[in-house]
Amino acid sequence: MPDSESGRAGVLRGAGVSPGVGVGPVRSVAGAVPEPPAGSRHGGDAAAERDAALAALEEVAADLEARGARAAERGNTAGRDVLNAQALMARDPGLADGVRARIEEGTAAARAVFEAFGVYREMLAGAGEYMAARVSDLDDVRDRAVARLLGLPVPGVPESDEPFVLVARDLAPADTAVLDPAKVVAFVTEEGGPTSHTAILARTMGVPAVVALPGATSLADGTRVLVDGAAGTVRPEPADAEVEAARAAAAARAAALEGSTGPGATKDGHKVPLLANIGGPKDLEAALANGAEGVGLYRTEFLFLDRQEPPSDAEQEEAYRRVLEAFPQGRVVVRTLDAGADKPLAFLPPPGEEPNPALGERGLRMMRRHPEVLTAQLAALARAAAGLTTTLQVMAPMVTDADEAAFFAAACREAGVEHPGVMIEVPAAALRARDIAPEVEFFSIGTNDLAQYACAADRQVGGLAHLQDPWRPAVLDLVAPAAVAGVPCGVCGEAAGDPALACVLVGLGVTSLSMSAPSLPLVRAALARHTLDECRRAAAAARAARTAGQAREAARAHLPALSELGV
Amino acid sequence: MPDSESGRAGVLRGAGVSPGVGVGPVRSVAGAVPEPPAGSRHGGDAAAERDAALAALEEVAADLEARGARAAERGNTAGRDVLNAQALMARDPGLADGVRARIEEGTAAARAVFEAFGVYREMLAGAGEYMAARVSDLDDVRDRAVARLLGLPVPGVPESDEPFVLVARDLAPADTAVLDPAKVVAFVTEEGGPTSHTAILARTMGVPAVVALPGATSLADGTRVLVDGAAGTVRPEPADAEVEAARAAAAARAAALEGSTGPGATKDGHKVPLLANIGGPKDLEAALANGAEGVGLYRTEFLFLDRQEPPSDAEQEEAYRRVLEAFPQGRVVVRTLDAGADKPLAFLPPPGEEPNPALGERGLRMMRRHPEVLTAQLAALARAAAGLTTTLQVMAPMVTDADEAAFFAAACREAGVEHPGVMIEVPAAALRARDIAPEVEFFSIGTNDLAQYACAADRQVGGLAHLQDPWRPAVLDLVAPAAVAGVPCGVCGEAAGDPALACVLVGLGVTSLSMSAPSLPLVRAALARHTLDECRRAAAAARAARTAGQAREAARAHLPALSELGV
Repeated sequence: MPDSESGRAGVLRGAGVSPGVGVGPVRSVAGAVPEPPAGSRHGGDAAAERDAALAALEEVAADLEARGARAAERGNTAGRDVLNAQALMARDPGLADGVRARIEEGTAAARAVFEAFGVYREMLAGAGEYMAARVSDLDDVRDRAVARLLGLPVPGVPESDEPFVLVARDLAPADTAVLDPAKVVAFVTEEGGPTSHTAILARTMGVPAVVALPGATSLADGTRVLVDGAAGTVRPEPADAEVEAARAAAAARAAALEGSTGPGATKDGHKVPLLANIGGPKDLEAALANGAEGVGLYRTEFLFLDRQEPPSDAEQEEAYRRVLEAFPQGRVVVRTLDAGADKPLAFLPPPGEEPNPALGERGLRMMRRHPEVLTAQLAALARAAAGLTTTLQVMAPMVTDADEAAFFAAACREAGVEHPGVMIEVPAAALRARDIAPEVEFFSIGTNDLAQYACAADRQVGGLAHLQDPWRPAVLDLVAPAAVAGVPCGVCGEAAGDPALACVLVGLGVTSLSMSAPSLPLVRAALARHTLDECRRAAAAARAARTAGQAREAARAHLPALSELGV
Repeated sequence: MPDSESGRAGVLRGAGVSPGVGVGPVRSVAGAVPEPPAGSRHGGDAAAERDAALAALEEVAADLEARGARAAERGNTAGRDVLNAQALMARDPGLADGVRARIEEGTAAARAVFEAFGVYREMLAGAGEYMAARVSDLDDVRDRAVARLLGLPVPGVPESDEPFVLVARDLAPADTAVLDPAKVVAFVTEEGGPTSHTAILARTMGVPAVVALPGATSLADGTRVLVDGAAGTVRPEPADAEVEAARAAAAARAAALEGSTGPGATKDGHKVPLLANIGGPKDLEAALANGAEGVGLYRTEFLFLDRQEPPSDAEQEEAYRRVLEAFPQGRVVVRTLDAGADKPLAFLPPPGEEPNPALGERGLRMMRRHPEVLTAQLAALARAAAGLTTTLQVMAPMVTDADEAAFFAAACREAGVEHPGVMIEVPAAALRARDIAPEVEFFSIGTNDLAQYACAADRQVGGLAHLQDPWRPAVLDLVAPAAVAGVPCGVCGEAAGDPALACVLVGLGVTSLSMSAPSLPLVRAALARHTLDECRRAAAAARAARTAGQAREAARAHLPALSELGV
């Protein structure tokens, strides 16, 4: 019935990147604040204008601090630090002087604020890559103050007392640092793809999300929408029956997931350990709650970023041991420091200009120039694992060939790390996996970077998302030789958390899957409903297809039980 | 004999990237000019200090203009324009005011110049990517003035009355714009690889070059050296007998090349058309002189770069027709505008921030957002070819999949261009070449970009040169499926100009080779001395190897006649 009477507003279709059903009113992230026109003058009462400007700056500072405090309450201390630093900018005395001076000369408050920030902006922009990245934080403070002075909605994520569907063009990490997970029932964005920040955040939070939805930002604030993160649809003003049907399907799936426990395996008993991707000890709780059999990707950057010198040996050992202790019967795969590219380190600057940091000196390339950092990390890992029953595996990022793999394996053994491995994320490494296999004990395929390089399309550029789809047969063509090169081969990219693609990866020969913890139950259920042979047929069908969409469709035809799970 | 008595100075080994033998005294590109210490004060005679500073700036301006005039005499008008713009900077009245003011306050002349340039530098650096690229031109002017004031050698390429061997850490295009080809007998650089600017320039000039030579910059100015660009060696203070032997070998090779004429073919008559890479009509003379059978890569960017709006239809048609008319019996392969990445266009800015332009919206990706530019170029090409006997083939850069190829082929046919093709330079396109082949009439493999993406290593970063070697078996693994996908497949990257690798490419199934014109005779001679079967065995041996070095060695074992050519 709803479909026949749906002249009022059709279903909008995008890409479902985090399953589940959410219903609620739309709250949009306010758009850009316009630049106040050059030459804007105030009416003549400079004192009143000045008071308004300084009051706006103080309100912005106080609001940022309050948001910081709320972020900290939710355990997001990094978010709080960013917000407090922004509050300091808003209260900078030099900035206030600049605003006052311009207002004295007759400039309107909003324009005076805009121009005074401009001075700082130029200084930052000219002060090297790391400082230049702070420009967006500064712009955010400026826009908040200008918006207050012009009576415009303040940009950024809205605050709301009731649960809502967050709608945006795209979301950046800074937008979501202060998000209250209890208030967001779904994410909908106009841009982005399966590896965009929104998608990863939504899966981590266990909230449904639809990205790449044309017209998303045209949805009026307050419109009630039904978001189906499995189907990738958004229905404005849904009939009650529709909501009920969607919720019933989601409940059926939830029930199926409820029974999804124990070690990962196909229907016919082929074991596929299901592991969690974590960014630090803070993510252990979700991993254990979702039944992870261990950690398949422990990103260690959190220990190194935003610091002036490397962490101490003791600090590293402690952080590693906490994770290892959580899986006494399982394994923990640690990735050594993957600095460079979009994660510059203050104490390890690149050797020169890098016009394309993603193609530059990152990962193991950087560690070969700074072996003391690698050696210290490996030694801390070996000490952390001493006396524990957990299997510690350690892998290097951005390995290109067998020589680099041999260098890393030797460094591991020298430091007492017994099980060295490498990430397969450079196309050359995937193609020549059989040459690299003799040097190490295992592989882990990073499908996000592998797709980025294979398709020469930046993961950070939303407009190229269609080129980075891990379903592209070319990407599967690179997974295949790595999966059968002679050593156990996991996948730790976002692809592993897609239930259909997870089956395809197993069909290609992948031996373990690691993903955001909330994706584990659905992947476990999908594997449990299909035989290894079905997975193999799905993989062959996907590789025989010509496009990502055709590959997805062809694979699903061999994975009939996915529909039971509502995916 | 020379080898036994060579205790005095051994042979230095690097990578030979342009064959030939050159002997002459070392002239080094002077190193960086140090920053005059902050707080440097002059003795008190501000007037004298000011006069010295302004005189230095004027001398720099006059010298730059003189160099510009010499560049123009050699037909390098683009070089002259850059140099004249730099002279304008040196004479900028605002800059002189800044210098004067600082000297009045007691700052020493060199420091005052340094700081006054700093103001402009920051403005440029903050004014968007294109302007930021001009910062290095500005720094060059500053360093020249500071060097004069401090009595240091002026940075940049040395001028000399006698022929010399140019030695540098690495060379940038700006360094070489004013180079007098008659004066340089060889290039030697400490960094760089086979696709570095130095290598390409040396091959274009037909001058021997050795790159990636450790310790090159430690060679003292004036030391006489023997450079063998085929063997990749540099011998300091060579004995006369050594020089004679090297020259004799080079002469023998030159004689062999003298007889290298006619269409390209293997010893057993398998035809491999040998074509030239050109950047505009100015390169036709060298192409014809070296017996090119046509053009395999006509880069059309020169028509579009450094302009505020696209070239007119008539201007384009004229530039295309001049090239087409040069090969009435041959073919001309035109690559449509490859803007973006390191070639930004003022009138087609990228749609947003691109943290990695090489992985961004470049080539055909940009043309899909600006179809009017593509349509105009294709129409101009069709008009240019009308009534001529030349075969016009047109190809798109940065194609990722069959959908993009189909889009381009349709645009070509719509515009009256009969033979559409695509570049294979994205790994995904190489892997799925069989899916793309039905959409177009031919492929052309760009090995430089293909290696860059396959190995995730920026072509512009000298320190990663070892990762971009086209001999890497992984790169050959990507060439292979494209070469046998069902349509004629050329190679137009630098790999095609390496005589041994050219034979390997033919062995992989490549049907034509396009290169810098001076590389043609040697490649023609190498092919003529080996059968198709030898090429195939060399290709199989290279792909069976594990490293680039092993692949080169394994291939050469099947190409015995290369040694006759001194390669």
